[in-house]
Amino acid sequence: MRLLLLSNSTLPGEPFLGWPREHLKTFLSGRRSIAFVPYAAVTFGFDDYLDMVAPVFEESGLRTIALHREKDPALALSGAEAIAVGGGNTFRLVRELYRHDLLRAIRRHVQEGAPYVGWSAGSNVACPTIMTTNDMPITEPPSFRAMHLVPFQINPHYTDVRPEGHGGETRDQRISEFLVMNPRMPVLGLREGSGLLMQDGAIELLGRDMRLFRHGQDHMEVAAGTRFHQDLREFTGSGAKS
Amino acid sequence: MRLLLLSNSTLPGEPFLGWPREHLKTFLSGRRSIAFVPYAAVTFGFDDYLDMVAPVFEESGLRTIALHREKDPALALSGAEAIAVGGGNTFRLVRELYRHDLLRAIRRHVQEGAPYVGWSAGSNVACPTIMTTNDMPITEPPSFRAMHLVPFQINPHYTDVRPEGHGGETRDQRISEFLVMNPRMPVLGLREGSGLLMQDGAIELLGRDMRLFRHGQDHMEVAAGTRFHQDLREFTGSGAKS
Repeated sequence: MRLLLLSNSTLPGEPFLGWPREHLKTFLSGRRSIAFVPYAAVTFGFDDYLDMVAPVFEESGLRTIALHREKDPALALSGAEAIAVGGGNTFRLVRELYRHDLLRAIRRHVQEGAPYVGWSAGSNVACPTIMTTNDMPITEPPSFRAMHLVPFQINPHYTDVRPEGHGGETRDQRISEFLVMNPRMPVLGLREGSGLLMQDGAIELLGRDMRLFRHGQDHMEVAAGTRFHQDLREFTGSGAKS
Repeated sequence: MRLLLLSNSTLPGEPFLGWPREHLKTFLSGRRSIAFVPYAAVTFGFDDYLDMVAPVFEESGLRTIALHREKDPALALSGAEAIAVGGGNTFRLVRELYRHDLLRAIRRHVQEGAPYVGWSAGSNVACPTIMTTNDMPITEPPSFRAMHLVPFQINPHYTDVRPEGHGGETRDQRISEFLVMNPRMPVLGLREGSGLLMQDGAIELLGRDMRLFRHGQDHMEVAAGTRFHQDLREFTGSGAKS
């Protein structure tokens, strides 16, 4: 399986999918078509989302197949040589994926070799569940279970900033709560401008350092460029920092 | 029905349930016992939570009945003259409320006259659904439906601060997304140190200004001290500010 799981699409002041553009080109090299899943969009339309995404993939020579325009999205998916799941609201995304019976279809297609690109909510749904999303639960999906293409949870848009004077939970506290309820599941905090490039269980951390959380352990900073196994062992390259 | 719905329990540097202490005393005046629901606690124990809460209610002359210690929580609830639902993680809280079949029991008890106090997650579950919580969905409840004791959604810990350089959604954007998916449901953004005192549909805003969100309308700042009907009309007193 090949996956490119990005924390976020775009950094402030940059064009859409700006920072990961070169990673996308390399990752999708040789593919001619890509199925795009726009279902995470809430405050803008699926067609608007397509208009943002299609030119980016066209740059890499890929024709975009927008699944929301297809009568049988699962069938259309099977004809695409790659798949991209866009960010937005994770609850809406997973609800629509269930509605169109796409979770299993995407999983199978990726297992059969189609490269998977996700950003933000699109990275969340590649995980075992959506339980480490930052999104508001604005709509109710039939289940929190997601694609389980990786054996860990991603927290996208990870930040350790605490807004001054705010008594709400920090991100680290939220992740700690997740670990109490799910002690065997690690969480990878991906800062904005970072992502995971994964091939057959081997992962490379792109862009920025990440923070790795495991129940009962201090969190670990992992340097950008580090390579590791998806079971979170054999860290090499830039290596663990602390 | 009488409800006291608080954004949060405690402001930084203050004792537990410090800012709402006087409101609690007035609200619970004349009651001798209060059922306490600690199920939102995740990183500390239910008994620890009880130890924090019981002295506060004792100050007001109330004996605390901790529902997590009762073999039949719904039965114990029916013998209590008031009810308090503590904050923590909303998903865990609502999951446990379903597990112990307490959602309907609490609703009925409040409809029959028992005053209801909630803070943070405890305010979320008084709403029609938990869809405007800020919490991470660390565990899966059987439903997002909650007690529907009020005809609107509360967003506790409301803030319009945007952490610098962070590309994630602001709170206003999250609430906007909720409104797109649920256009007929208003959202009351309760800043920390504020709350709603409600009696038979008449509400007084305590503590701080709140922000009211409705689909297709500009948000409205409502001044602390304003009185209004639960259907969000007849604003009087300090009144709407903008």
